[in-house]
Amino acid sequence: MRATTIHGPRDIRLEERPAPTIAEPTEAVVKVVAGCICGSDLWPYRGENQVDEGATIGHELVGVIEEVGDEVRDFRPGDFVIAPFVHCDNTCAHCRAGATSACKNQGFTASGQAEYSTVHQADGSLVKTDGMPDAAMIPSLLTLSDVMATGWHAAVSAGVRPGSTAVVVGDGAVGLCGVLAAAQLGAERVVAMSRHEPRQRIATRFGATDIVPERDDEGEQRILDLTDGVGADAVLECVGTNASMHTAFKIARPGSTVGFVGAPHGVELPVGHMFGKNVGLAGGMAPVRTYLPDLLERVVSGAIDPGVVFDLTLPLEQVADGYRAMDERRAIKVLLEP
Amino acid sequence: MRATTIHGPRDIRLEERPAPTIAEPTEAVVKVVAGCICGSDLWPYRGENQVDEGATIGHELVGVIEEVGDEVRDFRPGDFVIAPFVHCDNTCAHCRAGATSACKNQGFTASGQAEYSTVHQADGSLVKTDGMPDAAMIPSLLTLSDVMATGWHAAVSAGVRPGSTAVVVGDGAVGLCGVLAAAQLGAERVVAMSRHEPRQRIATRFGATDIVPERDDEGEQRILDLTDGVGADAVLECVGTNASMHTAFKIARPGSTVGFVGAPHGVELPVGHMFGKNVGLAGGMAPVRTYLPDLLERVVSGAIDPGVVFDLTLPLEQVADGYRAMDERRAIKVLLEP
Repeated sequence: MRATTIHGPRDIRLEERPAPTIAEPTEAVVKVVAGCICGSDLWPYRGENQVDEGATIGHELVGVIEEVGDEVRDFRPGDFVIAPFVHCDNTCAHCRAGATSACKNQGFTASGQAEYSTVHQADGSLVKTDGMPDAAMIPSLLTLSDVMATGWHAAVSAGVRPGSTAVVVGDGAVGLCGVLAAAQLGAERVVAMSRHEPRQRIATRFGATDIVPERDDEGEQRILDLTDGVGADAVLECVGTNASMHTAFKIARPGSTVGFVGAPHGVELPVGHMFGKNVGLAGGMAPVRTYLPDLLERVVSGAIDPGVVFDLTLPLEQVADGYRAMDERRAIKVLLEP
Repeated sequence: MRATTIHGPRDIRLEERPAPTIAEPTEAVVKVVAGCICGSDLWPYRGENQVDEGATIGHELVGVIEEVGDEVRDFRPGDFVIAPFVHCDNTCAHCRAGATSACKNQGFTASGQAEYSTVHQADGSLVKTDGMPDAAMIPSLLTLSDVMATGWHAAVSAGVRPGSTAVVVGDGAVGLCGVLAAAQLGAERVVAMSRHEPRQRIATRFGATDIVPERDDEGEQRILDLTDGVGADAVLECVGTNASMHTAFKIARPGSTVGFVGAPHGVELPVGHMFGKNVGLAGGMAPVRTYLPDLLERVVSGAIDPGVVFDLTLPLEQVADGYRAMDERRAIKVLLEP
C-alpha cells in the first residue's frame, strides 16, 4: 500500500509499505477513506521529537472495515468507522472510569496517512456510523478521531460550565475545536486567543464571543481586563509550549482549572503559582472513545460541524505539501484522500 | 505582649513586642486563647525558607475579641472566634467563588504564637462560636484555623467521593486531618501512608482502613497492589516535597486528581506523566474561611474531633521546646497556651 513515512526533519515521503494484516484476533484493518495531518505531527516534522527513520506516520482516520480478527464481534467488513487515535478495550478498570486513553490494552493508529491502518481492540475502540455517511459529513466525522475529541477534552477538563467565561489558548485546529466545545458546553463568553484572521473567522463561527490577538503579557492583560480583573472561569490550553501554559495559568481565576491537551514540550509547571492561587491542571491525552458516541450524535444532528477546520484537502500523493502548508501556517489542518 | 519570634535556623525566642492595635477600621485584635505550631513553621525553622530576623511567627489561633475597628459590624469584644490563617473580605469575586485564600483583600495571621494577634477583614474572616466553648473543645476548634481545613481542602481538591479509595501521602497533622476528611466525605477505603506508630493510631481513629508504612517505590507498589493495579481514586498530597509529590502521581489512577496542600518545596511536577495518564492536580493554600461554617458544625456536633492531632500542650514560654519536639518528630503537633 501507499503510506506516508517520515525520515527526518521535514522529510516526509509517500512510499510502498506492506498493507497491514490481522496479527491479533481483536484487531481490525481499516481501508482509509480520509486521514489528516495533526498539529502533533509537526513536532517530529520540525525535528522536536525523535523519529524512527522510515516509520509510518498519521493517527487520525475514518474508513471502511476491510478485515476483522476472529474475536471481533461488533464490526464486519464494509462498516464505516471512526477510529480513535488511541485504541482501548473499553472494558478494563481505566476504560470503565472513562480514562480510555490509559487503557490497559492501549494501542495507537500508526498509519493514518496511508491506504490501510490497523485498529487494535476493534470492538472497544471503533464506533460505526449508521450506514455510509454523506461525503459532506466525512470531514466532521474525521475530526472525531482526535482533534474535535481533544478540544472537547480540554473544555471538559477545564470544567466549562453553563454561563461561564472560557478562554482558549491556541488557535490551531484543536484550539478551534476547543472553542466549539466550550460553546456547546454552555459557556456564555468564549474568548479565542488568535492573531490569524482565517482562524479568527472559524473561532467566531464556532461560538467565540471575543477574539484576543495579543500574546504573552499583553494578551494576559487583555483577558484580565475582559474579566474585570478576575480571570477566566475556565482556560483551555491547546498548544503545549511553556509560554502558552504560563499564559493559561496567568489568566485562570483562583480556584479554576486549566484544561490541557497539547502534548507538553519543554513545559515547567508553575507550581508555586498553582499553589498560591489554587489553579488546578487537568486533562492530557484525550480519551477519544469516551466522548465519541456523544460527539457523533452532535455531528449527525448538525449541532456541530467541526470539519470546517480542514481548509485544505489534498490527495495522499501530496502529503508532503500538506505538511509544508501546515508548518508554514498556510493551512490550519489538511485532509488527505488516499 | 509576649510573642514568639524567629531569628534564624532553630532560633525561636519568646520576646516582648508591642501588642497590636487597630490600624484599619476593618480589623480586630484577638486575645489568643490557644495557638499552635504548624508543619509549615518548620520550613523557616529548618532554614529552608528565608526569615526576617526577629519577625513574629505563628498563624493558627482561636481566641476572644479584644477590640474591633469602627467598620466591624458582626463581632464585638468578648466573642470567641476562630481566625483562619488567611484573612479575606468574603465579598470579592474570588471569595464569592469560594476561593477565599485568594481574596483581593488577603491578609495573614502574623502572631499566632503570642498573646494577641490582628485579624484583617474581621467581618469576612472570623467565625464565632455560640458562646464560650468548653475547654475540651478548644483543640478541635483551633484546628479549624488551618490544619483541619487544609486536610479538608486536600480531600475536596482530590475529589474524594462516597465509595472511593483515597490515599493520603504524609502523616503530619495535615495528613491525619486529610484522613479524617476523606472518611467524612464518604471514602470507603482510606489508606494512610505512615510509618510512625503514634500517627498510625490517630489515622486509624480518624477512619483509615489501611496503613502503608513503606515509602517511595515500595510504598507505591503497595498502593497498586491494594488497588488491583489500578491506583487510587483520589490522592491527598500533604507534604510538599518532590518525593511525596511524585509518589502521589505514581499512585493516582488515570483520570483522577492529586489534591495538594503542602507548600511546595523543590517540586517539579511530572507534566509528561500527568499528560499521558490524565492525572490532574488541584488544591493549594486552603480557603479556610470557605469551609469553616461546615467544619465548625461537625466539631460542635461531635462528628469530628480533629483536636487529637495535638499530642503535646505547652505554655507559651516553652514554645522553643515545642518547635524542637516537632522538628525531631517527638510531637505531631504542639498546642501553645499563652
